[in-house]
Amino acid sequence: MTSPAKIGLIGTGRIGKVHAASIAALPETTLQWVCDPFIEGAEATAQLFGGVHVTADPRDVISSGDVDAVVIAAPTPTHVDLIDLAIDAGVPVLCEKPIDLDILRVDALREKARAASTLISLGFNRRFDPHFAELHRRVSAGEIGALEQLIITSRDPEPPPAAYVAVSGGIFRDMTIHDFDMARFFVPNIVEVTAHGGNQFSGMIADADDYDSAVVVLRGADGEFVTITNSRHSVYGYDQRLEAFGDEGLLQVGNIGPSNVRSSTSAGIDTGSEIYGNIVRYTDAYRLELAAFVEALRGGEDRTPGFEDGRAALILADAALLSAKENITVAVDLSA
Amino acid sequence: MTSPAKIGLIGTGRIGKVHAASIAALPETTLQWVCDPFIEGAEATAQLFGGVHVTADPRDVISSGDVDAVVIAAPTPTHVDLIDLAIDAGVPVLCEKPIDLDILRVDALREKARAASTLISLGFNRRFDPHFAELHRRVSAGEIGALEQLIITSRDPEPPPAAYVAVSGGIFRDMTIHDFDMARFFVPNIVEVTAHGGNQFSGMIADADDYDSAVVVLRGADGEFVTITNSRHSVYGYDQRLEAFGDEGLLQVGNIGPSNVRSSTSAGIDTGSEIYGNIVRYTDAYRLELAAFVEALRGGEDRTPGFEDGRAALILADAALLSAKENITVAVDLSA
Amino acid sequence: MTSPAKIGLIGTGRIGKVHAASIAALPETTLQWVCDPFIEGAEATAQLFGGVHVTADPRDVISSGDVDAVVIAAPTPTHVDLIDLAIDAGVPVLCEKPIDLDILRVDALREKARAASTLISLGFNRRFDPHFAELHRRVSAGEIGALEQLIITSRDPEPPPAAYVAVSGGIFRDMTIHDFDMARFFVPNIVEVTAHGGNQFSGMIADADDYDSAVVVLRGADGEFVTITNSRHSVYGYDQRLEAFGDEGLLQVGNIGPSNVRSSTSAGIDTGSEIYGNIVRYTDAYRLELAAFVEALRGGEDRTPGFEDGRAALILADAALLSAKENITVAVDLSA
Amino acid sequence: MTSPAKIGLIGTGRIGKVHAASIAALPETTLQWVCDPFIEGAEATAQLFGGVHVTADPRDVISSGDVDAVVIAAPTPTHVDLIDLAIDAGVPVLCEKPIDLDILRVDALREKARAASTLISLGFNRRFDPHFAELHRRVSAGEIGALEQLIITSRDPEPPPAAYVAVSGGIFRDMTIHDFDMARFFVPNIVEVTAHGGNQFSGMIADADDYDSAVVVLRGADGEFVTITNSRHSVYGYDQRLEAFGDEGLLQVGNIGPSNVRSSTSAGIDTGSEIYGNIVRYTDAYRLELAAFVEALRGGEDRTPGFEDGRAALILADAALLSAKENITVAVDLSA
Repeated sequence: MTSPAKIGLIGTGRIGKVHAASIAALPETTLQWVCDPFIEGAEATAQLFGGVHVTADPRDVISSGDVDAVVIAAPTPTHVDLIDLAIDAGVPVLCEKPIDLDILRVDALREKARAASTLISLGFNRRFDPHFAELHRRVSAGEIGALEQLIITSRDPEPPPAAYVAVSGGIFRDMTIHDFDMARFFVPNIVEVTAHGGNQFSGMIADADDYDSAVVVLRGADGEFVTITNSRHSVYGYDQRLEAFGDEGLLQVGNIGPSNVRSSTSAGIDTGSEIYGNIVRYTDAYRLELAAFVEALRGGEDRTPGFEDGRAALILADAALLSAKENITVAVDLSA
Repeated sequence: MTSPAKIGLIGTGRIGKVHAASIAALPETTLQWVCDPFIEGAEATAQLFGGVHVTADPRDVISSGDVDAVVIAAPTPTHVDLIDLAIDAGVPVLCEKPIDLDILRVDALREKARAASTLISLGFNRRFDPHFAELHRRVSAGEIGALEQLIITSRDPEPPPAAYVAVSGGIFRDMTIHDFDMARFFVPNIVEVTAHGGNQFSGMIADADDYDSAVVVLRGADGEFVTITNSRHSVYGYDQRLEAFGDEGLLQVGNIGPSNVRSSTSAGIDTGSEIYGNIVRYTDAYRLELAAFVEALRGGEDRTPGFEDGRAALILADAALLSAKENITVAVDLSA
Repeated sequence: MTSPAKIGLIGTGRIGKVHAASIAALPETTLQWVCDPFIEGAEATAQLFGGVHVTADPRDVISSGDVDAVVIAAPTPTHVDLIDLAIDAGVPVLCEKPIDLDILRVDALREKARAASTLISLGFNRRFDPHFAELHRRVSAGEIGALEQLIITSRDPEPPPAAYVAVSGGIFRDMTIHDFDMARFFVPNIVEVTAHGGNQFSGMIADADDYDSAVVVLRGADGEFVTITNSRHSVYGYDQRLEAFGDEGLLQVGNIGPSNVRSSTSAGIDTGSEIYGNIVRYTDAYRLELAAFVEALRGGEDRTPGFEDGRAALILADAALLSAKENITVAVDLSA
Repeated sequence: MTSPAKIGLIGTGRIGKVHAASIAALPETTLQWVCDPFIEGAEATAQLFGGVHVTADPRDVISSGDVDAVVIAAPTPTHVDLIDLAIDAGVPVLCEKPIDLDILRVDALREKARAASTLISLGFNRRFDPHFAELHRRVSAGEIGALEQLIITSRDPEPPPAAYVAVSGGIFRDMTIHDFDMARFFVPNIVEVTAHGGNQFSGMIADADDYDSAVVVLRGADGEFVTITNSRHSVYGYDQRLEAFGDEGLLQVGNIGPSNVRSSTSAGIDTGSEIYGNIVRYTDAYRLELAAFVEALRGGEDRTPGFEDGRAALILADAALLSAKENITVAVDLSA
C-alpha cells in the first residue's frame, strides 16, 4: 500500500474546513500542513483533523519539502500568487475557484501555468457530485443521443452578507461561475453568452450594484443551448437541479436530501421537508474531487478541471456581466 | 349508429346518482326509468339527468317492456328479489354489490341465476378503474412473470355513520368485499382466508360489534399471497393502492388526485394536498363499468364480474369474519 | 334549467373535431351548425357529434339567427374576416389562436373589436388546463409570495409536416405563441423579449427558414423573468411543464399521463411509459375553455382570454423572431 | 479529545468486513484485534483496515486486556459462548444477530446476561438506518398520532446458496428476524403471531424444508397491526420499505439508490435503474450502529438493542414457524 499523500492546506475558512475533513477522511491523504494568517483558525483545524504542522505563512508550506500537494482555500486575491509559488516549487495544487476576479491577472499567469509540468486543478467540485457525474456519464455514453438543451437551476438558500457581496465580484463571477463550469462540463466550447440580471428582492444587493437573480442563455459551437436560472434566495432550500435534453431522451437530477421519509397527513403529502444545504449537498463532491486530484497526482487519469477551465469560467462570467449590463449578446472564443 | 340502450335505474341514493350520471354521460345509454320508493329522490334524479319515466315501484321498471337493462342501486336486502324479477322478465341487470349479506339467500338464487340466459353483472367497479385495469392488463400480459404477492391497501377517509354500520353486515361484507373481488380479479381461486379484525379508534364501531380496521391474508390455489390492509379512517384521504409482485418484477398503483401541482416552501415539499375522495376516485370506473356492461349486453365480450363473483366475494367475507372471530385460518372452496 | 347554448362550429379539422366533442359533451351546449368548405368533413363531424345543420359557407352559420355563438377552428387566414362578420352579426365568438399571422391585419380589426359589445374569446386553451389553472390559482392566492421566475417547458413529440411548417408563420407564431400566452397568464405586462432560435435536428425545418428549437427569456414590468424552452421533437412524448418560483416557494406541474402504474423490473424503475399526447393532454382544457366561454356568454364572470390577449401573444412572437434573427433584445409595449 | 475505543473484531466474513470498515472509518474507534480461525482472512482484513493484532483464537482477543470492546461477527453457533466469555472478562460486546438459533441456549445465558453490568448489544443494524430512524423519530414525536398499522416490506435480491439455507435456521430466524426487530422497534410488546410460509419459486429451498416467501401478521398489546411481506428473490433489487399508519397520518420510506438520475426516453420514464444492494443499502446503518454502541460504551445514552431484544426476535421467529407449520395463530408473551 502506497503511503498517503501529504497535503498542505492553505486557508481554514468555511471551505478550508470542508477540505480538511475530506483530507482526514480519505485513506489516500493526510493533513501535513495547515496554514492560515489567522493562526488560531489553523490551529483549531489542525487539532480537529489531525494536522501535523501549523503556520501563518503559506510559503512555509509550499517550500517545506514536506508536502506532496497543496490545497488552496485562501481568499480569492491570493490565488494567483500562491499558484505561481507552487509552480516554482514544483508542488501540485488544487485551488478553489475562481482563479481571480480579474481576467488580466489570470492571463498574466496563463503561459506559465500552461508550460508548467506541475498539476494545477481547479475546485469545480460539482463535476464530482455523484448525481451530476452519473448524469454526465450517461450523456457521454450516448443515452440521450446528441445533447441539444441543458437546463441548470441553481438557487442559494439566502444571500451572502453585504460584506461578502462587496468583494464577491458579483453574482456571475461568484455564484454563476459554478454553473458556467457545469455548462462547460457538458458543452466545453461555448461561443455565445446572453445574460439577464435582476434585482427582485434584495435592496442590499442592488445597493452593491449587483444582481440578486439571473437568467443566462449560452450557445455551444454545435448549436447546443444551455439555460441557467439563478436566485440568491430560496425559502425551500438549496435548489440544485440539472436537466439534459437530447434527440433520444431526457435525463434529470432533482434535489437531494438526507432522508426519503414521505408523509401524508391532513395537511397534505410531504416528500421530505429537507433539502441538503450547501456544504452537505456537496460533501461527497468535495471528497471525490480530492480523490480525483490524488489520482491525477499519482499518474492516473486526470479528470480534474484545470487552469484553462478556471479561465474559461471567468471569461463566461465577464461576458455575462457585459451582456446583462449592455443588453447585448456577447460572442466568446474559448478556443484561443 | 345503434340507438342507445334504455336503462332503468332502481335506487337514487349516493351510488344511484353516480350511475345516473354515467348513464347520462355515455352515448351508448339513456336514462329511461328512474325508480325510488322515495319518489322525490327519483324525480330529482330524473330531472337532473334527463330520465323519461319515474316510479316508486321497481316492478314498473322491470315489467315495462321499455328498458334494455336495469341498474340496481337499491338497498342490499332488495337485491336478490330484484335480480329474481329481472331474470323472470328477461331483463339484463347490473346490480350493486353485495348480492345479499346472507349467503343462504344468495345460494337460494344461485341455480336460477346460473341457468338464466339473462346477463347478470355485479357492480365491482374497481375492476374498471383505469389504473387498476392497466396494472391487471400488464400482469396478464406477463410483464412481471408469475404473480406471487398482491398487496391491497384500502382505507376509507372516515367511518360511516352508526346507523349505516348497524346494517352494513360488518367491515368484511361491506368494505373488504371490494378488496376480496380485487383479489379474485388477479387470483380467482382463493383457497384459504386468515383475517384479523381490530378496534383501533372507534368506540361506536366497537359498540356495534364490528371492526374498524382489518388485515387479511389470502392464499391462492397456486400459492399466491394476497394481503389486504383496511382502515375505516384515514386523515389524508381515500387510500386506494395496489401492488403486484412477481418473479420478474413489481407493479404499483398509488393514490390519484385532481392535479399534480407540487409545492416546495419553507414548510416542506408537498406533492399535492388532495387525494380523490370515494366517488370521484372511481368516477371513471363507474362509467367504464357501465360501458362494459352495455358491451356485454350487445353481444360483445363479457368482461363484467357476474353472479358467481358476487357470491365468491361474500363467501370470502364470511370466511374472514369466522377467521377473525375464532382466530383460525379458514379453508374455502370457490370452485364448488 | 336554461336550455343549452346553440353553437355553430366553423372548421372541422383536427382542432375542430376536439371542439365538436366538447360541445357534445357539455350539457350547456349543443352543436347547432357545422361548417366546412370540405363539406364531407362537416357532415362526418355533424353525424358523429349530433350537429343539426351543415354548410360549406360560414356566412350561413353567422347569419342564421339560429346560433348563440360560433367557434372558429378554420385556417388562420380566415380568422380576421370571420371575427369581423361575427361582430357585425352580434354573434359571440370563440376563435382559435392566432388571430392572424400578420399584426397589421390584427391591428386593422383592433378598434372594431374593442368597441364591439360582442364577446370575443381567443382559444388559448392551456389557461384552462386543470393543472396549470390550479398552479395559477395558488400563485394568485399568494402561496409563493411575489412571483420572480416562471419556467415554461414545451416540447412537441415530433415536427409538423413540411407543408404545415411552410404556412405556420414559424415556431414563435405557431408553437411558442401558446407559451407567450401562458407567460402573460402569470405576467400580463411583458416589457422585454430575448429569443434564441436553433436548428438542432431538422433539415426540413431549416430549409423552410424556420427554427426547430428555441429558448426565450421575457422580462415583466415588475422585473419578473419568464424562461421558455421549446423543441419541435421529444422522443418521450409531449413535454408540457411549468414551474413558478417566488419569494415564498416553488410550484411545479409535471407531465400528465393516463395511468400511474409504476413498474420495477430488472430493467429499472419505470413510472409509466406514457405521457399524454397533444389532444388528450388538453382535452379537459378544451372542454373547460368552452365552459368558461359559455359562462361569460351568459353574463357570468369572463375568465376567457380576449382579442387583446391574442394580439399581445402575436406581438411577443414577432418580437421574438426579430430578437432571434438580429441577436438583440427587443423592448415591447403591450399597454399601448 | 478522548482516545479512540480499541475494538476487537471476531469474524472476518462478509459482515465482519463491513464492521472492520466501520471501525476504520469512525474516528471514535480503532481496529486493535482481528480474529478468525481462518487466519488468512484475519490477516487480510487487518492489513486492509489497519488492525494491530491478529489471532485465530477469540479468547486471545477477549482476554487480551487490550480491547475496550469486541464485535462478534463469527458464525451464529459461536455467539452464546463468546458473549459468555465476554461477560466473564467484563468486555462490552456488540454481537451480530441472532444470538442463537436455539431459544434454549439463549435462555440458558439469559439470567447471566441480565445480571451482567457489561454492555451487550445486538446487531439489529436497521434501527440505525437514517431513513428508518428518521421515520421512527417522527412516529415517536407524535407526527401521525397513535400508531395503528406498520407495514414492512423486505425482499432479498436472490436466495442464499443451498449450503447457507441448510444452516440458516429457516427464513423466519434468518431473514424475517430483522423485520421482527423492526416491528419491535415500533411496537415492543407483540402479543400474537400469525405467519404464512410459501414455496413460490425455489425448489432448492423447498427441498431444504424451508420457505422462500412469507407473510406475517403481528398484533401488539395495544391492538397495533404489523404486516411483514418477505420474499427470497426480487429481480429489481433489494426491496426494503416501511410504512407507518396512525390516526393522524402516514409515513413511508421507499427504496434508496445511489443516484437520483431520472430518465425519459422512448422506452419510458425510469427513475433510476439501481436500488442499493444489501451491504451498501445499510452501510450507514452499520456505521451508525457502531457509533451508538461506542456512545453507550462511554456512558452516553444506550440506544442499542440488547440481549432481551435478540431473545424477543428469536421468540417471534419460533412462533412464526410454529404458526406457519400448524396454520394457527400463536400467542406470545415477551414481557415474561
